Amino acid sequence: MSTDWPAIGSKDWVVADGYIPPESTGPAPDMTSHDSVCMLNAGAQDAVVELWVYFTNREPSGPYILKIPARRAHHQRINDLSDPAVVPHGVDYSLVLRSDVPIVVQHTRLDSRQAANALMSTIAYPA
Amino acid sequence: MSTDWPAIGSKDWVVADGYIPPESTGPAPDMTSHDSVCMLNAGAQDAVVELWVYFTNREPSGPYILKIPARRAHHQRINDLSDPAVVPHGVDYSLVLRSDVPIVVQHTRLDSRQAANALMSTIAYPA
Amino acid sequence: MSTDWPAIGSKDWVVADGYIPPESTGPAPDMTSHDSVCMLNAGAQDAVVELWVYFTNREPSGPYILKIPARRAHHQRINDLSDPAVVPHGVDYSLVLRSDVPIVVQHTRLDSRQAANALMSTIAYPA
Amino acid sequence: MSTDWPAIGSKDWVVADGYIPPESTGPAPDMTSHDSVCMLNAGAQDAVVELWVYFTNREPSGPYILKIPARRAHHQRINDLSDPAVVPHGVDYSLVLRSDVPIVVQHTRLDSRQAANALMSTIAYPA
Repeated sequence: MSTDWPAIGSKDWVVADGYIPPESTGPAPDMTSHDSVCMLNAGAQDAVVELWVYFTNREPSGPYILKIPARRAHHQRINDLSDPAVVPHGVDYSLVLRSDVPIVVQHTRLDSRQAANALMSTIAYPA
Repeated sequence: MSTDWPAIGSKDWVVADGYIPPESTGPAPDMTSHDSVCMLNAGAQDAVVELWVYFTNREPSGPYILKIPARRAHHQRINDLSDPAVVPHGVDYSLVLRSDVPIVVQHTRLDSRQAANALMSTIAYPA
Repeated sequence: MSTDWPAIGSKDWVVADGYIPPESTGPAPDMTSHDSVCMLNAGAQDAVVELWVYFTNREPSGPYILKIPARRAHHQRINDLSDPAVVPHGVDYSLVLRSDVPIVVQHTRLDSRQAANALMSTIAYPA
Repeated sequence: MSTDWPAIGSKDWVVADGYIPPESTGPAPDMTSHDSVCMLNAGAQDAVVELWVYFTNREPSGPYILKIPARRAHHQRINDLSDPAVVPHGVDYSLVLRSDVPIVVQHTRLDSRQAANALMSTIAYPA
């Protein structure tokens, strides 16, 4: 493995439980409540990822375009997305990610609404 | 992807660790202890999902009928189910979900029995 | 599904991160730190599950025999296993479960060593 | 199973969300914030695992060599890796693990930056 960098993973991924907790306790930005998609592009080609946000009561929003260079990790807070629109806080959503090369996606939330932060994480669903 | 909406996921899903913590700390309903199934119907057809609850000491209860429109997320607190019966709090259970179209299911619990909330989440098991 | 009960899942499962936190805060047994395997036998036949505990420095211990009736959930705290031996607290371990019929296994830990409990959960690895 | 020890799992694994929280609350080493890969080598042959760390802004670092004897669990804190280099705290990363025999990998983080610890865990992605 030290001399080649094979692509690893799937091109299509789903996060079903999206939610940005609307309050936070503790110093920003580290302890700010957030929802993240943590992505690895292990391969030798740069990745372009289209992310779509699905809601309960309206049409999906997107595509958000994320670029991950070859052999790089990219941890993206959903809080920080703004084009084509900010993702509202305190609202249920789901995510679909489509990459042009295989990647791996893990979903993590930090919730600091109460005095100590809570964490949750899962490998996303490879479609 | 911007012009078509393919269905994504599996029709059958299992959550093995079901439990609604019987106490809560903090403002309701946000910080109320709960167990949720977070579902995405990414496709172009509406989904009808049958949910069954399995217990330790008695026959399964169901079906609970959940409808998820095309291209919509639906996060369902188990606490809020009432037909055919409320799911008891403080009792171990498991869930089987069967959809008529592919969906993706993630299981999340918020436990606020103690002073700060705890979270756990996992993509459910696609059967 | 209301008239038949198909078996769902895999016969072989692995939990790699086993650990029983050695201290607890809050009322027992609910808030006692514990590691659990939460199992669903969705099918029409009773299941017999052999569980083996693997350690860092010594040979595996087992089999622990767990019986799950047809159409039943069974959430087993590792803390409560005693035959052939209690699983030590504060020690790293992994688990292999082998069932004679398909089941689904989810691994959950409650850690109440500090003032508020922490939770983690994941669907186990279906071998 | 009591008389043979089949290998279980995959040779290639990915953890996308790597992060060592840079502060801790509570007694070391138990409550020190850490990121871990918990591995099981269930089989009859010793395993040699190459671990690579991928970053956001620079080339991957590795290989870190981890040896897991036959029929043994090995829980490795990323904090404790030092050859070829310590993994920096407070920095986003991803992990690729390649074993010469099948293993199972689970990723767990303990975050004690605030007053009570938070936990998250997921079975890693089998490539």
